[in-house]
Amino acid sequence: MTRARIHNFSISLDGFGTGVGQSLETPFGHAGHRLHEWMFATRFGTSMFGREGGSSGVDNALAQQFEPGIGAEIMGANKFGPPGWQDDADWKGWWGPNPPFHTPTFVLTHRPRSPIEMEGGTTFHFLEAPPAEALDTARQAADGKDVRIGGGVTMVRDFLAAGLVDHAHFVQVPILLGRGERVWDGLEDLEQGYDIETVASPSGVTHLIFDRKAS
Amino acid sequence: MTRARIHNFSISLDGFGTGVGQSLETPFGHAGHRLHEWMFATRFGTSMFGREGGSSGVDNALAQQFEPGIGAEIMGANKFGPPGWQDDADWKGWWGPNPPFHTPTFVLTHRPRSPIEMEGGTTFHFLEAPPAEALDTARQAADGKDVRIGGGVTMVRDFLAAGLVDHAHFVQVPILLGRGERVWDGLEDLEQGYDIETVASPSGVTHLIFDRKAS
Repeated sequence: MTRARIHNFSISLDGFGTGVGQSLETPFGHAGHRLHEWMFATRFGTSMFGREGGSSGVDNALAQQFEPGIGAEIMGANKFGPPGWQDDADWKGWWGPNPPFHTPTFVLTHRPRSPIEMEGGTTFHFLEAPPAEALDTARQAADGKDVRIGGGVTMVRDFLAAGLVDHAHFVQVPILLGRGERVWDGLEDLEQGYDIETVASPSGVTHLIFDRKAS
Repeated sequence: MTRARIHNFSISLDGFGTGVGQSLETPFGHAGHRLHEWMFATRFGTSMFGREGGSSGVDNALAQQFEPGIGAEIMGANKFGPPGWQDDADWKGWWGPNPPFHTPTFVLTHRPRSPIEMEGGTTFHFLEAPPAEALDTARQAADGKDVRIGGGVTMVRDFLAAGLVDHAHFVQVPILLGRGERVWDGLEDLEQGYDIETVASPSGVTHLIFDRKAS
């Protein structure tokens, strides 16, 4: 059985996966880049921008798990673009001509459109479906590999609540955002289905790694 | 200058310092003992109950910081007793004849009563005062030593928000309570005033240690 996996999902100490005031200029609202600086400081993070250098310790090792074995991604509408992207027929995501997914990528939206083929193997498919059905569709496209549950906050919470996630890697950044979207809301007792490993990195972030318990 | 210190303050992964439904039988509501099992597994924790044994690693070393150098404690009304304790003239706290404070201990309440002298050096004083004024009073009683900010959740949040805390030790337990009192609410950007050290214990909990930045 293949797995559904969450990777590099950054949250603040108070549990926010994004701030308030999301826009084209500020994809994470008032959080700015603070939730993801840890990743951009790694070799994995710098390579995403075609640059060199970066750390190669535990942050990097865990960040790199993002790619191996993944055959498709599902993301929520709020990850694909700023509020209102559905009204822009030319919007193709934040990531330029060669997005970092390199697989079929399913965007959950109430306003599906035709697929968009990008460079590097990423094709965006637009899908209106509940979590379990979306995962089935992505599994078929993943061709025997795992499916990445890509975010944003709301869809991650929905997939966790539906019991569809096999592996989840959260990265807790020691900042207090105070406002935004909380990832843990409505997930009482979630830990009972998982083995949880916690790693405090010298960089200051804390990795929380959830693996579904063997049933 | 002496310090105001928080110790062994346990929270869930979703930031709750207590659950819902607090009562005489369930001081932490539906959280039960889950937030504090880590502490009761240490030598420090077993000694609180006059027993022997327990772990002597990082959890124990940090838990033991609770006592040295403390000359007084301030606690909120919700820590001193279950809802309605103010109506019980005989209520003397949860802790039996010899409470684990061993110093003057100031209980913040809108319904002050006469002091209660317990065994072992603990005297409960009842005080209606805002945080800064309460801290001044406790500092005088502490006679050159530090003051412990004892909880519960609301008063810890109030003292943090007022900028009165010099050192804070939170212990994040990997459970999701879903409901209760959140410690981080209203503390946006709190981290900017502190150096924060994070330690993941083999026991599964994560220690978050805040030390006020040198000004």
